[in-house]
Amino acid sequence: MTYELWYWNGIPGRGEFVRLALEAGAIAYRDCAREKGGEPSLLMGDMQKDRKHPPFAPPYLVADDMVIAQTAAILLFLGERHGLAPEGTKARMWVHQLQLTIADLVVEAHDVHHPIASGMYYEEQRDEALRRAPDFRDNRLPKYLGYFETVLAQREGWLVEGNTWSYADLSLFQVVDGLRFAFPQRMSKLAQNHERVMALHERVAALPELQDYLGSDRRLSFGDGLFRHYPELDAT
Amino acid sequence: MTYELWYWNGIPGRGEFVRLALEAGAIAYRDCAREKGGEPSLLMGDMQKDRKHPPFAPPYLVADDMVIAQTAAILLFLGERHGLAPEGTKARMWVHQLQLTIADLVVEAHDVHHPIASGMYYEEQRDEALRRAPDFRDNRLPKYLGYFETVLAQREGWLVEGNTWSYADLSLFQVVDGLRFAFPQRMSKLAQNHERVMALHERVAALPELQDYLGSDRRLSFGDGLFRHYPELDAT
Repeated sequence: MTYELWYWNGIPGRGEFVRLALEAGAIAYRDCAREKGGEPSLLMGDMQKDRKHPPFAPPYLVADDMVIAQTAAILLFLGERHGLAPEGTKARMWVHQLQLTIADLVVEAHDVHHPIASGMYYEEQRDEALRRAPDFRDNRLPKYLGYFETVLAQREGWLVEGNTWSYADLSLFQVVDGLRFAFPQRMSKLAQNHERVMALHERVAALPELQDYLGSDRRLSFGDGLFRHYPELDAT
Repeated sequence: MTYELWYWNGIPGRGEFVRLALEAGAIAYRDCAREKGGEPSLLMGDMQKDRKHPPFAPPYLVADDMVIAQTAAILLFLGERHGLAPEGTKARMWVHQLQLTIADLVVEAHDVHHPIASGMYYEEQRDEALRRAPDFRDNRLPKYLGYFETVLAQREGWLVEGNTWSYADLSLFQVVDGLRFAFPQRMSKLAQNHERVMALHERVAALPELQDYLGSDRRLSFGDGLFRHYPELDAT
């Protein structure tokens, strides 16, 4: 069976958390919204289908007769079915709660540049973004990174016990990657006392399972998506 | 076994989604942070425990040898273990993705009054809140309510197939309750074309399983938590 992934073409966004899991797990999928030229109408048309379990928003995964939306739910499903996380309720819930905390960080990182309305341009909410950014840089970001640093300090290099990655490790890699793109000065400073988080980023980037993908054009660059680099929002 | 729920005393907040599931499921629990006078130091002390699976933030549930954080993860766990959602991967993922969409709505509702920093007072970000509120009222809120209305239109009164509630129905009740408190004018208007969502709210409020709880002092009132009523942020 080949999964169908649906997510906006052109940005890594939330779709990238799913893509990384599919690629690292060598799981067959079609990146449907990027096929045939990748016009937005492809995804918008699929979203309008009359479905019993309609997704609220992309990304969503079509699997057998299921349509699963919400990034963390998709990863929970893939993790269980393809061994991308340890088995057993305790470990399964642990990886899932880490993923949900990563999802919270992603929302906050996005809302730095869109504090007023996701449907408005950045330029229309730049003043508010300038007010929100310091709190994110100085309070929220260190709080999240410090949490993951503490978790990693108890283990052997991964967020879960043992010697191998879970889907949450791939997602933490992606968030750190995005944060380094969006807040290069601040992340450079925070790297100094969050060595384990940074080491995890390097470790995932070097995974043999991901080398082909990371060097391919399936891997999208950051730009005007979740993580954006506005120099005025960054500082050490 | 008696579960230990940990969440800030004094506000319903995210803890209430868990409480409703525990109460409706007649599941034994202690509301730990509200015991012995409910001083904040109780929860803060527990949060500082050296744990293998530390929670990033409340609410969290101590169950057997597990510590499960993240509201949606707690509900997924309780749903599976106590039959608060249908069995089977397909139904389980459906209820979970609904819960995660409810969680997204909760974040957006909160951020209307706190668009700049969760650690600052409302009065310090009132100007920005006044700018964010119309987008929430006019775009985001109808989008979410419209989604749940569509889902309910395909079914028999509950978010899941069949004749009984799941934990996601309890959560949607709680969100509607909070939104009616925070945005009475707007919700009164939106009630006119979201009849099924409003009917679900009434149906949950009338559940025999919840009557004792809803009339007790275990059920907290809204105030200065997630859902807040600032008249200047509301409008039809």
